[in-house]
Amino acid sequence: MSKQYNVAVVGATGIVGTEFLKIAAERRFPLKGLKLLATERSAGKRIPFGEGEITVEATTPGSFKGADFVFISASSAASKEYAPIARDAGAIAIDDSSVWRQDPDVPLVVPEVNADDVAGHKGILAIPNCSTTPLVMCLAPLHRLNRVTRVIADTYQSVSGTGTAAVLELEEQTHDWERKRESVPHTYPHHIAFNLLPQIDTFMDSGYTKEEWKMTAETRKIMHEPELPLSATCVRVPVFIGHSLAVHVEFERPFRAGDVRDVLRQAPGVVVQDEPSLSLYPMPRDAAGKDPVFAGRIREDVSSPNGIAMWISSDNIRKGAALNAIQIAEEMVARGLV
Amino acid sequence: MSKQYNVAVVGATGIVGTEFLKIAAERRFPLKGLKLLATERSAGKRIPFGEGEITVEATTPGSFKGADFVFISASSAASKEYAPIARDAGAIAIDDSSVWRQDPDVPLVVPEVNADDVAGHKGILAIPNCSTTPLVMCLAPLHRLNRVTRVIADTYQSVSGTGTAAVLELEEQTHDWERKRESVPHTYPHHIAFNLLPQIDTFMDSGYTKEEWKMTAETRKIMHEPELPLSATCVRVPVFIGHSLAVHVEFERPFRAGDVRDVLRQAPGVVVQDEPSLSLYPMPRDAAGKDPVFAGRIREDVSSPNGIAMWISSDNIRKGAALNAIQIAEEMVARGLV
Repeated sequence: MSKQYNVAVVGATGIVGTEFLKIAAERRFPLKGLKLLATERSAGKRIPFGEGEITVEATTPGSFKGADFVFISASSAASKEYAPIARDAGAIAIDDSSVWRQDPDVPLVVPEVNADDVAGHKGILAIPNCSTTPLVMCLAPLHRLNRVTRVIADTYQSVSGTGTAAVLELEEQTHDWERKRESVPHTYPHHIAFNLLPQIDTFMDSGYTKEEWKMTAETRKIMHEPELPLSATCVRVPVFIGHSLAVHVEFERPFRAGDVRDVLRQAPGVVVQDEPSLSLYPMPRDAAGKDPVFAGRIREDVSSPNGIAMWISSDNIRKGAALNAIQIAEEMVARGLV
Repeated sequence: MSKQYNVAVVGATGIVGTEFLKIAAERRFPLKGLKLLATERSAGKRIPFGEGEITVEATTPGSFKGADFVFISASSAASKEYAPIARDAGAIAIDDSSVWRQDPDVPLVVPEVNADDVAGHKGILAIPNCSTTPLVMCLAPLHRLNRVTRVIADTYQSVSGTGTAAVLELEEQTHDWERKRESVPHTYPHHIAFNLLPQIDTFMDSGYTKEEWKMTAETRKIMHEPELPLSATCVRVPVFIGHSLAVHVEFERPFRAGDVRDVLRQAPGVVVQDEPSLSLYPMPRDAAGKDPVFAGRIREDVSSPNGIAMWISSDNIRKGAALNAIQIAEEMVARGLV
């Protein structure tokens, strides 16, 4: 019988934690034990898993004893506090926050792109921002054939990227619209229903938001291209699940749209949906609940001789978070690293 | 007493027609007579205007006798048929469709940008696509100081740009979501509620949609830069009113974000909303019902030494259509061209 692992999930009651449990079951991740951790407030909740139920415990420094993997998708503060404790307890921490991503000792991994980076781990690994993951999955296979020289990415990000409170806020504001009632934003600085917010995360002195900066910094780290020019505008849209990106990429040499399509059709984890005559293209509504990153609207950029424009949608909770985390663990298991 | 004009509105019962009447009243356009025209189906409807009501008439080739201005915002077929008839009847046709925009005899005008072009009219003038107008209003004043060499524009376009049927469709799909009922798309090829459609208008062989092509072709014509490199991805979003754009512009020389802000603060029709510390930036919800084009999120593009990134929102029915049409008429009146 193959090896099995003790897994602890910090943030087990959140959107990503919930999806994590679903995906772990779907993929039959070789579990010996599963510990569900959350804040004091959620402790005692019973969560169905497999044929039984698991009681949620409050996370404490002692929670990670005997764990092989600790998945963390809670607050940044929780990631900061618990990842080193999990590592010191001998577990491998796989973290969903932005806290560790730029740490040189922490591999930032999208298995389809830079699986080899897991080998350099020192107990903590990070998964990228949920908009960066689909982007690098489309860029990396093209970059291997024709060097990417510049990327413009404008995002259309769903509220689930923020968490449960934001999903409830969009629901509530939609109910209020339905009842012709005024609503007051809590989670976001402004209304999100039937509106757009060109702000995700806080602002930096450069005028970019941290979310936009993350897309640049994380893409560079994952692709091992520390100077790659990339500019993003990140926008929150009134969609529940699924992040989308309008991308304009410049390459060292011209790239035919047909060749880009062929490369992406072969790219692991990417599905090309690109049949204009059938109005077939990626959309968040279709990507939600699915594993692949969907790419379409692939065309030669009229504004640049070596440019390609495209459109990407993917499930930000699955490939953008929970699935990617489990794939990292699977990769480490396959490589005998744990 | 100053001169007054006979005005006919084709498409008077549509979204743009309705807004047109509101704006004509607000701005006290010097009306002698006002004829409201629509399809046979809407004929007989009574529409309030000023202190009275006007009865809608079916549009016929004889409708334009005695008219000084004929505003057309109906179907492309109506624009194609009626603009020449209006012109031949001695009126000035100001058309909202894409039918006439690329005709070399037809000035395509945003008065804040290329008012002088009205002088060359031969009886038909066109207003641009509702995403192009806010874009050129921000590009043109910058271009005068520092030549624009390339533009990437990704749009976030509201359903009102499609017309009344699309507004009703988003409402209906939201009602259905509220009632947990399945809904079937009619106006769009896919659901628009809580979704994004990376398709506006039909596809061309290049892989661009006609809407995207219009943004390139119309920007070039308005700015008198027939070769300007511009690539757009146009996306429909679940917003009722207000089109937004994420824009990345390259200039001949570096441009400081502060200087761009100063130039746009002086630009006619543009309001800069750019206070990150207050989460102040353009949003469609705030732009709806207002005349200006709002620009914000202005920053130096990290991916290009001469680049600027910004974010624009504006009311697609007002400045994107009805207001721009009235401003063209006002410009012609001011110049004594009518």
